[in-house]
Amino acid sequence: VVGNTQFSFAFTYLSGYVLLSLEIRAQLIEQQKCLEQQTEMRVQLLQDLQDFFRKKSEIEMEYSRNLEKLAERFMAKTRSTKDHQQYKKDQNLLSPVNCWYLLLNQVRRESKDHATLSDIYLNNVIMRFMQISEDSTRMFKKSKEIAFQLHEDLMKVLNELYTVMKTYHMYHAESISAESKLKEAEKQEEKQIGRSGDPVFHIRLEERHQRRSSVKKIEKMKEKRQAKYSENKLKSIKARNEYLLTLEATNASVFKYYIHDLSDLIDCCDLGYHASLNRALRTYLSAEYNLETSRHEGLDIIENAVDSLEPRSDKQRFMEMYPTAFCPPMKFEFQSHMGDEVCQVTAQQPVQAELMLRYQQLQSRLATLKIENEEVKKTTEATLQTIQDMVTIEDYDVSECFQHSRSTESVKSTVSETYLSKPSIAKRRANQQETEQFYFMVCWSL
Amino acid sequence: VVGNTQFSFAFTYLSGYVLLSLEIRAQLIEQQKCLEQQTEMRVQLLQDLQDFFRKKSEIEMEYSRNLEKLAERFMAKTRSTKDHQQYKKDQNLLSPVNCWYLLLNQVRRESKDHATLSDIYLNNVIMRFMQISEDSTRMFKKSKEIAFQLHEDLMKVLNELYTVMKTYHMYHAESISAESKLKEAEKQEEKQIGRSGDPVFHIRLEERHQRRSSVKKIEKMKEKRQAKYSENKLKSIKARNEYLLTLEATNASVFKYYIHDLSDLIDCCDLGYHASLNRALRTYLSAEYNLETSRHEGLDIIENAVDSLEPRSDKQRFMEMYPTAFCPPMKFEFQSHMGDEVCQVTAQQPVQAELMLRYQQLQSRLATLKIENEEVKKTTEATLQTIQDMVTIEDYDVSECFQHSRSTESVKSTVSETYLSKPSIAKRRANQQETEQFYFMVCWSL
Repeated sequence: VVGNTQFSFAFTYLSGYVLLSLEIRAQLIEQQKCLEQQTEMRVQLLQDLQDFFRKKSEIEMEYSRNLEKLAERFMAKTRSTKDHQQYKKDQNLLSPVNCWYLLLNQVRRESKDHATLSDIYLNNVIMRFMQISEDSTRMFKKSKEIAFQLHEDLMKVLNELYTVMKTYHMYHAESISAESKLKEAEKQEEKQIGRSGDPVFHIRLEERHQRRSSVKKIEKMKEKRQAKYSENKLKSIKARNEYLLTLEATNASVFKYYIHDLSDLIDCCDLGYHASLNRALRTYLSAEYNLETSRHEGLDIIENAVDSLEPRSDKQRFMEMYPTAFCPPMKFEFQSHMGDEVCQVTAQQPVQAELMLRYQQLQSRLATLKIENEEVKKTTEATLQTIQDMVTIEDYDVSECFQHSRSTESVKSTVSETYLSKPSIAKRRANQQETEQFYFMVCWSL
Repeated sequence: VVGNTQFSFAFTYLSGYVLLSLEIRAQLIEQQKCLEQQTEMRVQLLQDLQDFFRKKSEIEMEYSRNLEKLAERFMAKTRSTKDHQQYKKDQNLLSPVNCWYLLLNQVRRESKDHATLSDIYLNNVIMRFMQISEDSTRMFKKSKEIAFQLHEDLMKVLNELYTVMKTYHMYHAESISAESKLKEAEKQEEKQIGRSGDPVFHIRLEERHQRRSSVKKIEKMKEKRQAKYSENKLKSIKARNEYLLTLEATNASVFKYYIHDLSDLIDCCDLGYHASLNRALRTYLSAEYNLETSRHEGLDIIENAVDSLEPRSDKQRFMEMYPTAFCPPMKFEFQSHMGDEVCQVTAQQPVQAELMLRYQQLQSRLATLKIENEEVKKTTEATLQTIQDMVTIEDYDVSECFQHSRSTESVKSTVSETYLSKPSIAKRRANQQETEQFYFMVCWSL
């Protein structure tokens, strides 16, 4: 019964350790799987990024080509015009034509920039992702080698603990067994001594001799068992010490593995991953930000040209372009007839009187016209101001069309309706033309 | 002879006026042609602008669609993944995956923005150019009506001058003719008076009577011619005054037309043109600037995410994702055998001595390991730092690829060579992997 109990106890203890060891072993395998999965996910992500940028590179290149074609089409058209010759000659263009040329230049600039973007995606960004993918795979392999060594070491430690515990249990069992055997011997000795306590005179000599040898035998056995017990006890204590030390060492090893080595293994897989990804994405960002800066510079040039849209200087330029048409003609000179000379007219009475009368009539007509003219001028100026206000109304801000909601998923739909409500535009235009007509009627009697 | 000279003089004077008038008339026609040409050029420019923006609208729409497709393709792919479920659940993503999602969002944002741009071109900018074209044509027509009136008036003035001058010349010629006739009569009278100065006694009475009646006749003729001359002289003076006044008026009219009316005519053609063009182009600029701002916002979001690329928090997240794999196991407990108790070992001499010896051996081994470990640690840290420096080298600035030369025609070509010199990259990577191997050798004895 004792042996059985002992065995079943040992089995329980051992099976607990075995289960824990198996559990650890399963965890180690799962850890490897997790790291492998992580690496696979990284490689997949990097593959997606490469595919993404390859496709985006194509889109940017196509966009660039379309813009180039667009610019080229209109450049070719304008290159042959008189304006362009003028432009080539003295860069002195009518302000709207200047805007138009800058608009075409901006498209060419955008075309070049998007081609550059496409090129950077293809030859720089994608290459980086490819390298990060290689690095990730290589690092995972390294970490796998390291993990293999660490797991081997850990398993060795666990096996040792198992062995050491078994030894302790075995030696302790033997120590118990030796002790119980010693106790049995001691009991027998006691019994013998008890018997020998009986009145001696009742016992036969022969019997007495037999008893004495029996006591001696028991004593000898007891001594032997005592020695055996001491020996086993020592062995058991040593085994227990060994077990205790190994137990501490094992827990320390397991702790070290889970707290430090595992972290180091993950770090090994991660080595350079985030930093390289950072650089790859920063290359993308650098390209995008620079494209934006270039685009902005181009737009600023156009904005300057739009600020310089000026009718006065254009009118000057227009008239200079056609000097023969706009140069005032010679004055009509007095053509005297046959040496006739105009001297101070000490004219005859009728002529002088007639001239005076006519002068007075003209003076009065002039006064009336001046008053009328002032009225017309006031009305004209007011009407022109109204027209000016109508054509300079600041209705060009379309920023609300580019509002994105905070949510990353949904973006506000385009709002053609709000920024250019067609009925309101039509009404405004009708109003403008009415004012125009009034202006022409007042100022030019049309 | 006198009549002929008179006529040829008049012809000279008149033909000078006629030539000048014809010249003016030709200029007026040329001015109209110039204004018409200017309007045609404007209409052509506005047509070009419409065609340009229509085509650009198509390009932007195609670009937008391609970007949308690109984003959708990868969104659909990731939507089914575990990461995405995670993301939906608690927005707690691994930092590289977060960057990837934001990259896709940015593409969607760009797609929406370019669609908006396309929409604004098509429904706002083009419409404005169309209206400016209509306005230009209408204004030109108005200016043509005004010009017609002004030219009519001018021609009336020129014709009047012509008439008035002709009248003056005619009256002056008549005055000269009357004067010469008067002088002739005076000569005859003198002759007659001279004759009557002859001694009277030599003449017959009959003859005397005849002479007296002849003198009377001549005197009467002289009086008549004197009256005629006076009358013609007055008419000639009046005509000359009329001519002088008309001459002044004509020159004033011509001056007024060339200096004021012509400028007003051009202003009439220009009415609102520059201002409306300004607004149309500002609408374009507003759209472009807003697209840029939106793009910049999106890039800033990505930059933030790139700044947050962090291995430490990702490691934490990774381990939390697999709690069963990374949770440290239970401690191995001391399994006492059959009620064996570990008490303070007042152990027998041999056990204690042995333990002491072992302790001392371990102490000395530990000291050696500590020294070795310090050395390894130093080397490892230095090597890791080298690797860190290698993977965080700031080699991602591509701004030089976006340099545009000042010239509006040529733009610097893309420079794939400079920003990613392939030999230098290969060398750097070889160097990096060598350092890696050294690290694994020192730190992990691989």
